[in-house]
Amino acid sequence: MSEPAIPEVTWTRKDLLGIADLSSEEIELILDTAEAFQAIAQRPIKKVPTLRGKTVLNLFFEPSTRTRSSFELAEKRLSADALNFSGSGSALSKGESLLDTARNLEAMAPDLVIIRHQHPGVPHLLADRLDSGVINAGDGAHEHPTQALLDAFTIRQHKKRLAGLKVTIVGDIEHSRVVRSNIHLLVKMGARVTVAGPRTMMPVAIEKLGVQVSYDFDEALTDADVVMMLRVQLERHGRSLFPSTREYFQVFGLTQARLARAKADAIVMHPGPMNRGVEIASAVADGETSVILEQVANGVAVRMAVLYLLSLAQQGKS
Amino acid sequence: MSEPAIPEVTWTRKDLLGIADLSSEEIELILDTAEAFQAIAQRPIKKVPTLRGKTVLNLFFEPSTRTRSSFELAEKRLSADALNFSGSGSALSKGESLLDTARNLEAMAPDLVIIRHQHPGVPHLLADRLDSGVINAGDGAHEHPTQALLDAFTIRQHKKRLAGLKVTIVGDIEHSRVVRSNIHLLVKMGARVTVAGPRTMMPVAIEKLGVQVSYDFDEALTDADVVMMLRVQLERHGRSLFPSTREYFQVFGLTQARLARAKADAIVMHPGPMNRGVEIASAVADGETSVILEQVANGVAVRMAVLYLLSLAQQGKS
Amino acid sequence: MSEPAIPEVTWTRKDLLGIADLSSEEIELILDTAEAFQAIAQRPIKKVPTLRGKTVLNLFFEPSTRTRSSFELAEKRLSADALNFSGSGSALSKGESLLDTARNLEAMAPDLVIIRHQHPGVPHLLADRLDSGVINAGDGAHEHPTQALLDAFTIRQHKKRLAGLKVTIVGDIEHSRVVRSNIHLLVKMGARVTVAGPRTMMPVAIEKLGVQVSYDFDEALTDADVVMMLRVQLERHGRSLFPSTREYFQVFGLTQARLARAKADAIVMHPGPMNRGVEIASAVADGETSVILEQVANGVAVRMAVLYLLSLAQQGKS
Repeated sequence: MSEPAIPEVTWTRKDLLGIADLSSEEIELILDTAEAFQAIAQRPIKKVPTLRGKTVLNLFFEPSTRTRSSFELAEKRLSADALNFSGSGSALSKGESLLDTARNLEAMAPDLVIIRHQHPGVPHLLADRLDSGVINAGDGAHEHPTQALLDAFTIRQHKKRLAGLKVTIVGDIEHSRVVRSNIHLLVKMGARVTVAGPRTMMPVAIEKLGVQVSYDFDEALTDADVVMMLRVQLERHGRSLFPSTREYFQVFGLTQARLARAKADAIVMHPGPMNRGVEIASAVADGETSVILEQVANGVAVRMAVLYLLSLAQQGKS
Repeated sequence: MSEPAIPEVTWTRKDLLGIADLSSEEIELILDTAEAFQAIAQRPIKKVPTLRGKTVLNLFFEPSTRTRSSFELAEKRLSADALNFSGSGSALSKGESLLDTARNLEAMAPDLVIIRHQHPGVPHLLADRLDSGVINAGDGAHEHPTQALLDAFTIRQHKKRLAGLKVTIVGDIEHSRVVRSNIHLLVKMGARVTVAGPRTMMPVAIEKLGVQVSYDFDEALTDADVVMMLRVQLERHGRSLFPSTREYFQVFGLTQARLARAKADAIVMHPGPMNRGVEIASAVADGETSVILEQVANGVAVRMAVLYLLSLAQQGKS
Repeated sequence: MSEPAIPEVTWTRKDLLGIADLSSEEIELILDTAEAFQAIAQRPIKKVPTLRGKTVLNLFFEPSTRTRSSFELAEKRLSADALNFSGSGSALSKGESLLDTARNLEAMAPDLVIIRHQHPGVPHLLADRLDSGVINAGDGAHEHPTQALLDAFTIRQHKKRLAGLKVTIVGDIEHSRVVRSNIHLLVKMGARVTVAGPRTMMPVAIEKLGVQVSYDFDEALTDADVVMMLRVQLERHGRSLFPSTREYFQVFGLTQARLARAKADAIVMHPGPMNRGVEIASAVADGETSVILEQVANGVAVRMAVLYLLSLAQQGKS
């Protein structure tokens, strides 16, 4: 096990709570560091001793396959010791407050805490109170910073830059933490972002974040460098946001024909899990321009980078 | 941690999906390799670096104590990094297709995937699409190859051979993946297999697999070298297959008296979990001829061997 | 990774089932050993190779956050391989007896088994039958020895002794395994223990264990060196043990005003999870005299000590 060629870095932030807090330099540092870690996944022995003897708590209060396993794999490849908790079966079900549960876990001196929670702001609450570094793995409809970072990493690999690109994000803009983190990141890095979707899924005043808003998918796709499709839940809280999946697909589903409006070398992204035939045609999801599975692969490298950088800040403290 | 004395082997198969696919040479190679790994369980430090830096996904869509823990222990003793998934709490519960879930996991570049699923053929589907090596840990009533291999390993340790032995398998033949894998293996290796059980639990045309069929337990036991009892579920899909546990025990329960019909040195096996007093008397389960707990212990060594051999095939590819 | 400075010890006990079995010398040995391990949590790399290649089974048949995670962390810091089981999803749900499940796990040759179970005596049953060392992590309302040991460790750190101290334990004395183990330990070590609580929560003849009984909280607090508050469940088995949480707090809740009756340097303890505003005021829980989070931190060191000592006994056998 040899150390990867990690850039010499200055990183002082204790936590990664959202993209809104980060400077463009910090974002670039994470992406550069992730490149160094990506090489590890190609080695026969996919492991480095970087976080040996460090403890990482994975607190997932919402179900998750890909984010949880991506973090877990990143932790194992860095040789960290991981402890897993889910919402059920914990002291929380005995009525303990989230903060007391967190304090108790904190007393066991973990170095880093990964948290996903259905309520926005919970990671910030923990970060304020805990000495451990805290990584937001998704808080309600608020932020999901490592998803935006892995998306940016994937775009940069294909386009060699972020500035000046036209990125079109399509679907349920209102209820997506993925889109919120992506908008923050892409706007900071100089990309031109257009969001498109039905009016029932579009938040009020979203253009204040610096994006174009469109209710016409074909128009929004025109000359796009990147097309990012979102997972659609047609109903939320018992309220129907669209008549049917068939109608959704007709109006906002990405087909090969429609994709022809984007640039010839446009890439297609999706954070998963996909609803094939609802927001995306299978031919596009599995097509040559799709980078959906690369996003998943890049997620491990980006999370290794974030874990590594936050652990530096932990060491700086002691 | 020193490497065990593993035989020099030629193994090219990417996956272990069923015994039906294997040649007798391949079966023998697995059993010989397992012998080398069995020695490790006797050491004070039960660990070798053989799979260090390799990632193994454990995908269990059906509940399992012994198979899952046996695989997990095998992975840890080989120093692999293990990631665990169960059916609930995963993206599958969000409606994602099995194949998309698998592709996403695949994108994280695991070396091996262990899968148990309620539907026959799911491991084969994954194996076709994924670069990772796939091990079938039980698919519906179809196959459970590592169970048959650990059974064969246990028989060979006691009888020094498989060819020519009379093996009697008793119980719910129709719904058992264990019996199907065992029949394939034992017939290939030259054993004479008799299956016995009530007519409601006997599949049509089972004799085409090369076995004798009997509905008379006493007759089937006569001169047996090995008696393999199966776990009985008296009801399936709301249909009663036998009047009562008491009656089942009278007709097909293995007692000391009944066992006297088998050879004097016959061994008694059961894949577990046992229903004491239903298919087997406690005196027999805990008796001198019982090798039931040896089966469990051997399971770890056999699974270490399979993991090791499939990892060789993975290296061969790169 | 270097070995900690562990005292040269003579420990022969295979299992840790309860404090009632231990001599005062054994208790002191555990506490001294825990001190050596506590230093590890302050290191940048919190890991020692002490149990490398050893397998530990964590069998939790009741939900648990802090005890389970404390054991798991102790195991990881000692470099042991941990296998986790919970009650659901196991062979037990298929009707297998506890003993058969245990025997099957045993056949996989674990070195140590940690067990929490809702029925008193289950750890003893396992310990009788298994070669592995067994640690009771809580059996019904019977014992929870590692909790009492970490409590004693915490008291000793603050008071430099146990003998002669006045320790007041308050709450649901009848249904608490924590209090039972604490009484055994503190009485053996020469402390003076007073238990206080409502009559509906006080077991018959508890004074036979060598403690004072009081139904008056203020009286019980007078001149206490240590105040240990217990978690209160106001209802058990549908029977109400107290009119309301508000009334409970008025009569048996620990407030700053009430705490003034104890010695000026008294420490406040709670095994968690806390009901703030029921048995303890938030101001006390988070106050200067509270050592509640230290208890959690010390739990890891104490469990590392117990795992280490029992592993010595395992080696002695071979």
